[in-house]
Amino acid sequence: MTIRVSIAGASGYAGGELLRLLLDHPKVQVHQATSESQAGRFVHSLHPNLRGRTPLKFIHLAELEEADLLFLALPHGQAAAELDRFTALSRRMVDLSADFRLDDPEIYSLWYGKPHERPEELRTFAYGLPEVNREAIRQASRVSGVGCNATATNLALLPLVRAELLDPQRPVIVDLKVGSSEGGQTAGPASHHPERSGAVRSFSPTGHRHTAEVQQALGLTDLHLSVTSVEMVRGVLATAHTWLRAPLTEKDLWQAYRGVTADEPFLRLVKDRTGIHRYPDPKILAGSNHADIGFEMDPRTGRVVSLCALDNLVKGAAGSAIQCMNLMLGFDETAGLSFTGLHPA
Amino acid sequence: MTIRVSIAGASGYAGGELLRLLLDHPKVQVHQATSESQAGRFVHSLHPNLRGRTPLKFIHLAELEEADLLFLALPHGQAAAELDRFTALSRRMVDLSADFRLDDPEIYSLWYGKPHERPEELRTFAYGLPEVNREAIRQASRVSGVGCNATATNLALLPLVRAELLDPQRPVIVDLKVGSSEGGQTAGPASHHPERSGAVRSFSPTGHRHTAEVQQALGLTDLHLSVTSVEMVRGVLATAHTWLRAPLTEKDLWQAYRGVTADEPFLRLVKDRTGIHRYPDPKILAGSNHADIGFEMDPRTGRVVSLCALDNLVKGAAGSAIQCMNLMLGFDETAGLSFTGLHPA
Amino acid sequence: MTIRVSIAGASGYAGGELLRLLLDHPKVQVHQATSESQAGRFVHSLHPNLRGRTPLKFIHLAELEEADLLFLALPHGQAAAELDRFTALSRRMVDLSADFRLDDPEIYSLWYGKPHERPEELRTFAYGLPEVNREAIRQASRVSGVGCNATATNLALLPLVRAELLDPQRPVIVDLKVGSSEGGQTAGPASHHPERSGAVRSFSPTGHRHTAEVQQALGLTDLHLSVTSVEMVRGVLATAHTWLRAPLTEKDLWQAYRGVTADEPFLRLVKDRTGIHRYPDPKILAGSNHADIGFEMDPRTGRVVSLCALDNLVKGAAGSAIQCMNLMLGFDETAGLSFTGLHPA
Amino acid sequence: MTIRVSIAGASGYAGGELLRLLLDHPKVQVHQATSESQAGRFVHSLHPNLRGRTPLKFIHLAELEEADLLFLALPHGQAAAELDRFTALSRRMVDLSADFRLDDPEIYSLWYGKPHERPEELRTFAYGLPEVNREAIRQASRVSGVGCNATATNLALLPLVRAELLDPQRPVIVDLKVGSSEGGQTAGPASHHPERSGAVRSFSPTGHRHTAEVQQALGLTDLHLSVTSVEMVRGVLATAHTWLRAPLTEKDLWQAYRGVTADEPFLRLVKDRTGIHRYPDPKILAGSNHADIGFEMDPRTGRVVSLCALDNLVKGAAGSAIQCMNLMLGFDETAGLSFTGLHPA
Repeated sequence: MTIRVSIAGASGYAGGELLRLLLDHPKVQVHQATSESQAGRFVHSLHPNLRGRTPLKFIHLAELEEADLLFLALPHGQAAAELDRFTALSRRMVDLSADFRLDDPEIYSLWYGKPHERPEELRTFAYGLPEVNREAIRQASRVSGVGCNATATNLALLPLVRAELLDPQRPVIVDLKVGSSEGGQTAGPASHHPERSGAVRSFSPTGHRHTAEVQQALGLTDLHLSVTSVEMVRGVLATAHTWLRAPLTEKDLWQAYRGVTADEPFLRLVKDRTGIHRYPDPKILAGSNHADIGFEMDPRTGRVVSLCALDNLVKGAAGSAIQCMNLMLGFDETAGLSFTGLHPA
Repeated sequence: MTIRVSIAGASGYAGGELLRLLLDHPKVQVHQATSESQAGRFVHSLHPNLRGRTPLKFIHLAELEEADLLFLALPHGQAAAELDRFTALSRRMVDLSADFRLDDPEIYSLWYGKPHERPEELRTFAYGLPEVNREAIRQASRVSGVGCNATATNLALLPLVRAELLDPQRPVIVDLKVGSSEGGQTAGPASHHPERSGAVRSFSPTGHRHTAEVQQALGLTDLHLSVTSVEMVRGVLATAHTWLRAPLTEKDLWQAYRGVTADEPFLRLVKDRTGIHRYPDPKILAGSNHADIGFEMDPRTGRVVSLCALDNLVKGAAGSAIQCMNLMLGFDETAGLSFTGLHPA
Repeated sequence: MTIRVSIAGASGYAGGELLRLLLDHPKVQVHQATSESQAGRFVHSLHPNLRGRTPLKFIHLAELEEADLLFLALPHGQAAAELDRFTALSRRMVDLSADFRLDDPEIYSLWYGKPHERPEELRTFAYGLPEVNREAIRQASRVSGVGCNATATNLALLPLVRAELLDPQRPVIVDLKVGSSEGGQTAGPASHHPERSGAVRSFSPTGHRHTAEVQQALGLTDLHLSVTSVEMVRGVLATAHTWLRAPLTEKDLWQAYRGVTADEPFLRLVKDRTGIHRYPDPKILAGSNHADIGFEMDPRTGRVVSLCALDNLVKGAAGSAIQCMNLMLGFDETAGLSFTGLHPA
Repeated sequence: MTIRVSIAGASGYAGGELLRLLLDHPKVQVHQATSESQAGRFVHSLHPNLRGRTPLKFIHLAELEEADLLFLALPHGQAAAELDRFTALSRRMVDLSADFRLDDPEIYSLWYGKPHERPEELRTFAYGLPEVNREAIRQASRVSGVGCNATATNLALLPLVRAELLDPQRPVIVDLKVGSSEGGQTAGPASHHPERSGAVRSFSPTGHRHTAEVQQALGLTDLHLSVTSVEMVRGVLATAHTWLRAPLTEKDLWQAYRGVTADEPFLRLVKDRTGIHRYPDPKILAGSNHADIGFEMDPRTGRVVSLCALDNLVKGAAGSAIQCMNLMLGFDETAGLSFTGLHPA
């Protein structure tokens, strides 16, 4: 007995990952996948890893039929603009765009530079990060995805926020290193290989929009994000620079981190004293829904550098979305998400 | 009901892939994994993607117990040297080393520069490439793995050899592009990142040992391999330069390739007229047991360039070994091997 | 006393390298640099390494003034179409495009798929590879650049051709590994970083146009090129698979190679028995005008793999063009071309 | 008329860059280059870019003769341990190690974990960063090199410190992205290509030793460094997170940055509104002695992210050392350092 899900906007990278993961999901049948530009072509023409795996072809959005759950992986703005259309097709939806992440329309217009099209609907979507909002997601029929950089930032800071260890007098600065797939599937001068290969490009030194989500999710205000693109296709590493409100031993910190990771199926605490895998590294997480978390404390200054690594297209997008679907439908939370990542890679 | 398998030599990259794949295999229980240098440590200390996936620790070879099937992923020479020890523990074995790939001890000593230690046992191992030797593998209790470059070469040439299309008067030259994981897990000056990164290094312009395997498997003599290391961790692309014995249309060639790939669960014919995925590329095969095959014909000259891409650690090592195990034990041939690879990656 | 040179088509990668090299050339003053799309902007807006090095701005082609020598680095076809315009501005020109490389208009139309626009002018250009055509270049007022892959192929084969060592009964196959800058400066889906990064893409398995140039330059007919794009921005490695007409010792081969490289200012014989730099590798040649040449012989089969590595934008384009200019004007042949390349890189 | 310089410790990457740059320096003759492990071999055996450029061979340290100036590029500790030996051979020396960067022996032992061997000599070395210490270097006979990460940090912060713009109540956090050549030439598990390639490895989240240098050079105390290794061989990007003591316009900040960069031969202000080269990126600086500086201000919060990119082996080591030599000897400060870097690369 499977449920019927469809994907609106399946030609992008997040849409491709939804397809890959859902095609292997034991409880799900992928019914339709839309792409305006690719309608009529096999999904494997854009997602070549799916060659031989499915005979599915892209359809037009206008051909979308009713489903038990709808994933929306459309350009920012489109989910809000066409919300009624999607609501008519499915009571349940998971929207991967930025449209319904923020509760407050004022905050939305501050960061996105224009008024929200459907402000009254903002609070009908649960923020889709199970590690901070699991019970609400279980009860929700609408869930909003989480920004990939916001996910890494949220999870890097969660142990310190939960245990109330942060010094409120000092800023929290999160310096994110990200791969080229964050920029999406559309080619342009900035993604031209001779220019992008090996670049260490300050993509968003200040003013990154995911800041607003994390401020909302964690209740932090003196929080600042900077994003640098490095040579990598998939992956995010969040390096969060924080200060403790009071001196702690490393053992105390361990407990705070263990408290957050111990019962979470996709969080792993990575902190080894030896070897070459002492801290979280997105390199070994490509394709996986795991988020690895770690930290280092400087006893001289009380600074704690908290780290989170993940795959922006999986735990930062399609994987978390499916994890939310699993919660919404009462499935095993890890169903379809067991891939551990590759080493070496 | 599962069978009990153990891995002798589980600390290397092929051993790590055996662990990753077998831990997800529905019919198998991984009993033991040996490493002389790492005995007592968690397998995830070397294979960090398995953190949280298994509590298994490495043991010494001397502690190895009986099993239903034994995978040997030891340094070349050790399987032959200690064959009796392994035979006492398991009737069934799959050896990933080069020790039992060749039937003829003379050929072995010619290419490996020394006499074989157990020449009388050479023919007790079936050559473990299902696409060329499936029935023998099904009947075998001992199977030898296949060199990663030999696998790519065998599969690139198989359609032309099966259909008897090659001109016997002209040489077959296979120019292989390979990643750094082919060199194994041991660090050294040649694999030092500042030296190896971005290198296009002629690793084995002439005299590559896998030549002998392919000559045996396909019955070709005027066959020549060259191997060049490029910037990549996993992956092989075999570019086989061949000539047709008689003029053919592209449609004829299509039929020959389709004839080989159509019924094979892990072979895909990749030959598109448009788009950016026209030919096989190892980039999208990392972690997958698929081998992609394609070709291009030059009607002016009768030259056919035949291509095969695969992941050297999966289809070129651990994946094919498990595929052989599935055949030996009557399991579904694809069990545990469904991962399709990632895109983008 | 300097001469005045201008560059028509200075916004591309070869144009950028002409600028970089000419700005440091002791005998040259760069007068103008054209770009239709960038006219009015500083050259450093496209070539950021030149920031602070020159106040030069791009101009329109229509603004081009008389010069002592004109470099043409325009899209293929434009030099032929506008030859009279350029002739009116400068008696001397070096054209980097493919327009004037072939002597025979029939051969041109065979490989380029259309008739040549100025067939009567073809033989007014000297083929601009000093190592095979130095005296003609010295006497020439018009020189054609050489395809980057043709340069690598020409130089890989030159020692064997000069010494007449090749078996005329066997084919010569040249398998080239190339970087992404060969595709030029225009972004598109194929060069989108998430797709191109780490790819091993069969770009031109058969039918590569540079084949015609090499056949002409070296007098070989049974010659076949295949080009594979690998993870690299700059660089070409030509791996030439050849057979000897008669058995030779390695020492004999050494002499043939030394005979070609010994007096050439930019050719180096790279063939070490130990270490990690045994063969030519483009990795250490970025920015340099050197071409490294090496070989390996298989005594069992008489096969010789001959290798040439170079930077496609320097020795394969702008550097050779300046070397030709030096010859045409009687300057020291190495003037402005002394950069040795970086290690590590 | 040239001066005679020698290099003690020329087998490492910084030593190789000293050789490359000094061999092209118009005022210098490279007399000797030492390496205990490589004595007797050609320098090009380790530095393959120098093949054909020099017949120099490595010698033993014991064979070192008198020179006009000595570069020391030895492992940390050796310059201090053998200071008298070197003093006997040359009055002038530039030491690239960490031995003589700090003035205060207490600070040294705090960060390096052991007492300094020659504390009385610490103040005989001028801190070798011309942009902060030019006049002292001009007068000095002994100069200490600067840590590569310290150089990037110093230069990122210099405009804000000089103009006294920093808020003393808020921390300065510098998050550095670095390449693999920072780890030196010795291979090991951490630099093994399959492990290091594509890694985003938190190398030194807290406690990086270069912190002490920058605190001393700039007079900052609430300063914190974190270093992350990314996929790159050469290069550092320092991302400095700072706060202004009072609100400023972007134009004010421009003036502060221009004030620092305008008269410096190797500093460039990189801050474009459009295009893909808006901020400093080490990608285009490989081989160059330039340091590119830029910034972004967040008017909402008063946060300024200040950026500096450079080549760790050139501006971060060998290039600055030669710049110091030029100052010490009254040469043109830019002599031998004109290479602009490559684009694309």
